[in-house]
Amino acid sequence: MFDYRPGLETIKSYSVEEKEWDSKLDANESPNNLPPLVHERVMNQIEYMAFNRYPDIGMLDLRALIAEAFATTIQNIVIGNGSSEILLALCQTFGGPGRSIVFPVPSFSMYGIYAQLTDSQAVPVTLKEDFSLSPEKVVEAAEQSQAKLIILCNPNNPTGTIIPQEDIEYILRKVQCPVVVDEAYYEFYGKSAIGFMKKYDHLIVARTLSKAYGLAAIRVGYMLSNVEIASMVNKVMMPYHINTLSLITAQVVYQMRDEFMPIIGQIIGERKRLADSLAAIAGITVYPSETNFILIKTDKAQRLSAYLSEKNIGIRDFSTAPLLTNCIRITVGTPLENDNVYKTIKTFMNE
Amino acid sequence: MFDYRPGLETIKSYSVEEKEWDSKLDANESPNNLPPLVHERVMNQIEYMAFNRYPDIGMLDLRALIAEAFATTIQNIVIGNGSSEILLALCQTFGGPGRSIVFPVPSFSMYGIYAQLTDSQAVPVTLKEDFSLSPEKVVEAAEQSQAKLIILCNPNNPTGTIIPQEDIEYILRKVQCPVVVDEAYYEFYGKSAIGFMKKYDHLIVARTLSKAYGLAAIRVGYMLSNVEIASMVNKVMMPYHINTLSLITAQVVYQMRDEFMPIIGQIIGERKRLADSLAAIAGITVYPSETNFILIKTDKAQRLSAYLSEKNIGIRDFSTAPLLTNCIRITVGTPLENDNVYKTIKTFMNE
Repeated sequence: MFDYRPGLETIKSYSVEEKEWDSKLDANESPNNLPPLVHERVMNQIEYMAFNRYPDIGMLDLRALIAEAFATTIQNIVIGNGSSEILLALCQTFGGPGRSIVFPVPSFSMYGIYAQLTDSQAVPVTLKEDFSLSPEKVVEAAEQSQAKLIILCNPNNPTGTIIPQEDIEYILRKVQCPVVVDEAYYEFYGKSAIGFMKKYDHLIVARTLSKAYGLAAIRVGYMLSNVEIASMVNKVMMPYHINTLSLITAQVVYQMRDEFMPIIGQIIGERKRLADSLAAIAGITVYPSETNFILIKTDKAQRLSAYLSEKNIGIRDFSTAPLLTNCIRITVGTPLENDNVYKTIKTFMNE
Repeated sequence: MFDYRPGLETIKSYSVEEKEWDSKLDANESPNNLPPLVHERVMNQIEYMAFNRYPDIGMLDLRALIAEAFATTIQNIVIGNGSSEILLALCQTFGGPGRSIVFPVPSFSMYGIYAQLTDSQAVPVTLKEDFSLSPEKVVEAAEQSQAKLIILCNPNNPTGTIIPQEDIEYILRKVQCPVVVDEAYYEFYGKSAIGFMKKYDHLIVARTLSKAYGLAAIRVGYMLSNVEIASMVNKVMMPYHINTLSLITAQVVYQMRDEFMPIIGQIIGERKRLADSLAAIAGITVYPSETNFILIKTDKAQRLSAYLSEKNIGIRDFSTAPLLTNCIRITVGTPLENDNVYKTIKTFMNE
């Protein structure tokens, strides 16, 4: 054994099951590749790029596009390798030895790992039985731990549930430390904390192109904040951390984002259809979702997971995960995939 | 001012001058885009990729290719967003509060910043007047500071100078802590520390596709080490940190790496031609280089830099940098670019 950074041995590797599923409903991806018009333009741009030159270190074109969309300046925009890198960088920027980071559980499992990786004190706040968040508990945890950063996930992964706008504002009003709202699933919900930015200087919003814009492959997310925070977060990122291929693709997709409205609309429709049909199966609880996935609960979760796997349907099995006992997360896929997963679950439950 | 991680305010942002140079000889990039055959295959692969799916988290295909080339296993290979991410991850893995990292100066400026970013103690070891490294000084610094990691850069950026193989082995023999040799410029030198890996379990080698393989845009580097270290370093990297576009491109290029031998050979030839011609100019000292760039020194460095900039030739001006007073780094470009930079310098020096 070599002499590693203390604590590193306790950090778990993020693990996912990699398998060639017939229906891949395990990672909250978009079921569709890029719309043809967008794909064509992306390919044209890549065709003429200089592979031998370093990326634009300032990522000025993409930041300008995003800044324009939010009527703000490029100095307020940070780009990351997915919103993941943004959340890690925020933990790095505000955390550190003896410094607390408050976040909900169950939520995106990387929050706790990023707190640990940056030597910060992780302060998880448990959601209620129905997976709603108590804003009072968040404020209390932040006060007691003298939190340096609060992470909220809205809508929340993997539960699909939301934090009402007034609860976010309650937290913003009560705490002084920066509050980041991870809005990875925003486009399937439609309500954002961004409206609070004018009033609350300590609000940070993180977004991603991985979900609604179908770009999980390219790893691009972005962050909005006040200029000072944005410049500090940029400091902890490596120079040239976003490669040119991803930058180019993100730019085209962001420019052509209207092309994605039909598929986003379809997923929202399919979400309701799938949720309603699953809820009609005896023995299954469906949690309300404002995302592109649905969390269900059943006493038979472990066996159901195995059955779905046998039928070559990939879902995310949380049945033995802390605070998610008997839960399974199903990404909303194509109408055909949704029919398929519904019928398979129904068959299993009726056996 | 918000309450940031202590020390963050002292970290400098990496800054580069971005300008559309006629001759871009400032960033040690390859002067050529991908060879046509390679480019065609890259475009074909990208055409059929699923933008909507997360990257292969294990990066198995690329790691298998590299492992095969070095007759080792994929468990010994780590992929990074450029070798930069690998060096940052190594500082994270072995550094930490009160833990020292030894590295040479002048060298790649990010070593010190990565030590700082990971809350580690930076222990710079100054090169000799001729920019050669004293292995005894490195060992002494490591012993005195109880170093947890030693970083060597061979050949060294920005000096172009090398560490003889016996000096690397001397350090490996004398210290117990991990020693990483950053071989970003290996292909222009031809000698690697990899041969020592069988004998020294604490040796780590980092490489990049950014330089000799002309892939600065895509940010892919790799690391070879023993299996235990590789697995710990992978732990501190974000899941899906390498995007699919970069992975696909790196795979094609690595498979077709023989296609790059002519351009590497040309650059080595041009390096000698440019170095010889610059050395013949009175008032210019040329340091020996085993890289794709040349470091020169002249009393008139500051004015020469300004003159080159006026003539729209981009070089890296180190004339006021610590330990590099009056130095300018020039990337070896195309024969035409090299002629141009030589003539421009000659004209200036003879004025």
